[in-house]
Amino acid sequence: MVIVMNKNATQAEIENVVATLIDKNFDVHRSTGISRTVIGAIGDKQAFDEREFLVLDGVSEVVRITEPYKLASRTFQQEDTIIKIKDVQIGGDEVVVMAGPCAVESATQIETIAAEVKKAGAKILRGGAFKPRTSPYSFQGLGEEGLQQMRSAADKNDLLVVSEIMDRSQVKIMVKYCDILQVGARNMQNFDLLKSLGKIAKPILLKRGMSATIEETLMSAEYIMSGGNYQVIICERGIRTFEKYTRNTMDISSIPVIQKLSHLPIIADPSHGTGIRNKVAPMARAAVAAGAHGLQIEVHNDPDHAASDGAQSLYPEQFAHLMKECRLIANAIGKKM
Amino acid sequence: MVIVMNKNATQAEIENVVATLIDKNFDVHRSTGISRTVIGAIGDKQAFDEREFLVLDGVSEVVRITEPYKLASRTFQQEDTIIKIKDVQIGGDEVVVMAGPCAVESATQIETIAAEVKKAGAKILRGGAFKPRTSPYSFQGLGEEGLQQMRSAADKNDLLVVSEIMDRSQVKIMVKYCDILQVGARNMQNFDLLKSLGKIAKPILLKRGMSATIEETLMSAEYIMSGGNYQVIICERGIRTFEKYTRNTMDISSIPVIQKLSHLPIIADPSHGTGIRNKVAPMARAAVAAGAHGLQIEVHNDPDHAASDGAQSLYPEQFAHLMKECRLIANAIGKKM
Amino acid sequence: MVIVMNKNATQAEIENVVATLIDKNFDVHRSTGISRTVIGAIGDKQAFDEREFLVLDGVSEVVRITEPYKLASRTFQQEDTIIKIKDVQIGGDEVVVMAGPCAVESATQIETIAAEVKKAGAKILRGGAFKPRTSPYSFQGLGEEGLQQMRSAADKNDLLVVSEIMDRSQVKIMVKYCDILQVGARNMQNFDLLKSLGKIAKPILLKRGMSATIEETLMSAEYIMSGGNYQVIICERGIRTFEKYTRNTMDISSIPVIQKLSHLPIIADPSHGTGIRNKVAPMARAAVAAGAHGLQIEVHNDPDHAASDGAQSLYPEQFAHLMKECRLIANAIGKKM
Amino acid sequence: MVIVMNKNATQAEIENVVATLIDKNFDVHRSTGISRTVIGAIGDKQAFDEREFLVLDGVSEVVRITEPYKLASRTFQQEDTIIKIKDVQIGGDEVVVMAGPCAVESATQIETIAAEVKKAGAKILRGGAFKPRTSPYSFQGLGEEGLQQMRSAADKNDLLVVSEIMDRSQVKIMVKYCDILQVGARNMQNFDLLKSLGKIAKPILLKRGMSATIEETLMSAEYIMSGGNYQVIICERGIRTFEKYTRNTMDISSIPVIQKLSHLPIIADPSHGTGIRNKVAPMARAAVAAGAHGLQIEVHNDPDHAASDGAQSLYPEQFAHLMKECRLIANAIGKKM
Repeated sequence: MVIVMNKNATQAEIENVVATLIDKNFDVHRSTGISRTVIGAIGDKQAFDEREFLVLDGVSEVVRITEPYKLASRTFQQEDTIIKIKDVQIGGDEVVVMAGPCAVESATQIETIAAEVKKAGAKILRGGAFKPRTSPYSFQGLGEEGLQQMRSAADKNDLLVVSEIMDRSQVKIMVKYCDILQVGARNMQNFDLLKSLGKIAKPILLKRGMSATIEETLMSAEYIMSGGNYQVIICERGIRTFEKYTRNTMDISSIPVIQKLSHLPIIADPSHGTGIRNKVAPMARAAVAAGAHGLQIEVHNDPDHAASDGAQSLYPEQFAHLMKECRLIANAIGKKM
Repeated sequence: MVIVMNKNATQAEIENVVATLIDKNFDVHRSTGISRTVIGAIGDKQAFDEREFLVLDGVSEVVRITEPYKLASRTFQQEDTIIKIKDVQIGGDEVVVMAGPCAVESATQIETIAAEVKKAGAKILRGGAFKPRTSPYSFQGLGEEGLQQMRSAADKNDLLVVSEIMDRSQVKIMVKYCDILQVGARNMQNFDLLKSLGKIAKPILLKRGMSATIEETLMSAEYIMSGGNYQVIICERGIRTFEKYTRNTMDISSIPVIQKLSHLPIIADPSHGTGIRNKVAPMARAAVAAGAHGLQIEVHNDPDHAASDGAQSLYPEQFAHLMKECRLIANAIGKKM
Repeated sequence: MVIVMNKNATQAEIENVVATLIDKNFDVHRSTGISRTVIGAIGDKQAFDEREFLVLDGVSEVVRITEPYKLASRTFQQEDTIIKIKDVQIGGDEVVVMAGPCAVESATQIETIAAEVKKAGAKILRGGAFKPRTSPYSFQGLGEEGLQQMRSAADKNDLLVVSEIMDRSQVKIMVKYCDILQVGARNMQNFDLLKSLGKIAKPILLKRGMSATIEETLMSAEYIMSGGNYQVIICERGIRTFEKYTRNTMDISSIPVIQKLSHLPIIADPSHGTGIRNKVAPMARAAVAAGAHGLQIEVHNDPDHAASDGAQSLYPEQFAHLMKECRLIANAIGKKM
Repeated sequence: MVIVMNKNATQAEIENVVATLIDKNFDVHRSTGISRTVIGAIGDKQAFDEREFLVLDGVSEVVRITEPYKLASRTFQQEDTIIKIKDVQIGGDEVVVMAGPCAVESATQIETIAAEVKKAGAKILRGGAFKPRTSPYSFQGLGEEGLQQMRSAADKNDLLVVSEIMDRSQVKIMVKYCDILQVGARNMQNFDLLKSLGKIAKPILLKRGMSATIEETLMSAEYIMSGGNYQVIICERGIRTFEKYTRNTMDISSIPVIQKLSHLPIIADPSHGTGIRNKVAPMARAAVAAGAHGLQIEVHNDPDHAASDGAQSLYPEQFAHLMKECRLIANAIGKKM
């Protein structure tokens, strides 16, 4: 941490800042320039609130110089984390695709879709059994029955399963049926849930919150990792801006940024990132071109009658075409798919 | 819902939209103008996804004309909801103040602060026992012990108690000690938690999420109300913008906006809304001047050694001074405090 | 500037940063801690691009420690700037009100309104003659004729005149008729215009851009001041956020923030800040309660037939009522109006 | 326009809305449903302020159903606009690249860079002679001398020239030296400048403002087009969000969105869109993958000593490598480069 004093800070004010730092176990380096004093403070604590120093008399600015996360940081681990589940590897040279409906609606529906996405090249089946819906009057998912149907459809097609967990009380059941547990954008800072997920042995797919900064997203990863579970995949799914035409604004630049800051895999979800079918393909291609480790895409055999999010779901043939384009783009930047 | 067709939409496209609407149980009014057709659709369902129609061929725009919430709406209930707890009324002519530390740290601390805020005119004691912290390495609260200490401090000073619930599993214990259960900004769309709170008989203080629109905030209130609990208080606590100087940008205009859209009480939290002590007083005054039904303010007897959020906590004497100013402002607009 | 090196930065990388700094005329203080090196750099240049150092090998973070503005800063001038025009003082204890129509439409219109706002207590008449309109098909203002009509109406009622300048070519004519020249939000970074205004002897009312940070707003003030014109009044008029209910989100907290960072007066424009009539009064009151030095409010004698912005204009009687409320609020915080 | 009345709107209120619409020359279609009345209004005016109706008694919501722009709209012209300058075509199947330094610094500098970007495949040389700088103390450009040097360098290398115009007074000189005139993000709503550019016979490159919506961007194009100049190229260069790691958040989804709404070409500027060198390549690739008609990229032979924006400028060899990757991606989606 660097504390910049006001130009006209008094000697007493400077001494008080130094004393406060020492009181909180920081090593102090004082540097007095022509116009003002700058104080460097080095500590070993990951968690402190820099505003505590900002409010001291004579202080002009306080700057944190270490990231507030540690385990998720590229400083802590230089090489990329590669998450291996059966024969699928997420985080390496291959762009891995998760696809499927927004919600599991029936055994027939999920089996039809599973076969389609498998054929087109997906490795992981996605689908919701517990649905976080903005309206209490919307379809809330099939629950365990949906999970059973999805597991069965995935097994028949040699696919892995990823599905969203909404509450700590669902951990046991989710672990039973899924290969990857997904934390939705709205739960990115549901810290009790994150803590629970730190104690299980399954990979977690953590979606960036709608207004979360990249730093906060990595802090939520840190929550899971600090519990002992290091298998975290980050997912960019659009942030909220003033632009009204798209549901969210997909922050494609977060992909290279997170790859620089962290060793964790980062994938993209263009379905929620745009919210509308005909924008999904261009944004999926953009994410691959920017270097994403994978994609999560909503595909439905009958989007017009989907129980939820039909408007952003691709038809199976659109998905198959998109996979071909993405494969060429992956190759163009030295990756495979 | 109003569906605007493209200028060059074909007759077949129009028929298809109409058929789809009928299929989904809407009453259809077609209006053909000089340049394009506009279709009005009236249904009785609260929950539908307008994007389902937006993706149909020939459709240019789809506009929802009813709010997606019902119970929370001023249309449903014209007169203001007034929440009565013992002799305190929230939602009427009196500006009610909730004050106390960010976190309960000890019996002595909470008792000292309770006495101070009572003396200055607060009616409700706030304090966290379960703390949602961005960092897993930060102080996480005292848990039930903290609740006990706060209840005791409140009772000694004839104050009510408001505290934050973080997870569904804490409902029972929170109900035991608190008069009002608070849902934090990060949990505003933790739908499982909201559903649980719909089934209890205590008022809920619902904080607007960091990037939640006003509509989404009212939708979360609707979640609670649809379960049967109509005692919801909304709280504005700042939204995220590009401005870096303040932690959040307090959307003071949400106060009159929510008062127009909804019958629920709306209060303001300038401590989290600004994140820095010397901005709390001007923003508290602004909220009262804009017509807020109440304030929630962090006060600490020793902010420099607070376990959390000390930098945004007022000293007791600052709080007492602020209460005096706010009282005059409340009077200026025909309210009391 | 403080440059934080990576944990694993090599000696050569550190030397290169130091050499680069010296090459660019900075004084260098090196501080080597347990885990990383921090380099302090002190220069006398106001303008440099910190990213030049951020891209050097081994650099983790670069932090500017001086504000990029100087003349506008509280460090440069501790006491408040008070702008005196005839018997009006902006920046002191009095809350000064500017009011009038969005656009001057006719001699009769502006005279009627001038008399009304004067009666209610306004000191300055506002009105546009050159209108920045989002649509090329909208009313573009009366030009010089409008300025003449406004000057005449103001003189008859002993009011000052403030009006918006849109282009450098209008400086001469604006100076002829106006007491204060206004720079609109969309022109806040029209640097050629700002430079021209630095060379005239009239006060400038500088509106914060729709997405400008507070720092950028003060940088634009600096542009004017660096030309020699120190009479700059800042105006908060709402920033763009994701909230759709209001046209903009008025950042009331910018008022105390700017008062801390700068000695320049800061006023608020709740008409543009909200965009809708019934939100103007609560936000005007909030701005006064937060400590604004003044208000700018749109008032129209016949808003339903206004050539522009009728929907956000107050009726004269609404304005008069608002003035009374604001006066009480100003008194509550030790100011007059 | 569709006007939705309140559920409890009176007959008199409905009549008043209808009368007001007729008074303003709208054709009125009234539709009375079970719960409320919806009024359709069709007019031929492009410019009106829907808030005029929103403030009428009994009105719940007002929805515009036509875009506020006309000439820029896909409805007005179905086929893509292709802008031809000598043998370069912008808007067709070829991805056109504009490259060069942020600012022209000397004849040698611009010639060196021109040769490099030509060799790598660029068709157009970019470079600033009049620089919009946030700080009045920063390098402001070489003016006409810079334009001369750039023209000469371009001619020697068979490149076109694009450069930024900052003020209406520069039109004549810019037309003399440039093939395309660029309007910077900060001037996107400098309406006097836009009007001037509507009257010249050179293509205009219009950059999206930092907080401009897509609709506003197209409205600014409309300003130019309404003056008679239909040769407008839109440029996405990042919007402002709360994310602090990148300078701006590049809204890659605006590329397919604008291609749907408008017939005008849309290119991307990843240099300003990210602000940092190592993020330029991934975002350039993403823009091509999303279907952009072109790219504008900053390239400098000696970025470490660039007079401005060195930190976001590519080295010539980085640029050459990027061109190769983009060419493969363009091919993957059926385009050439």
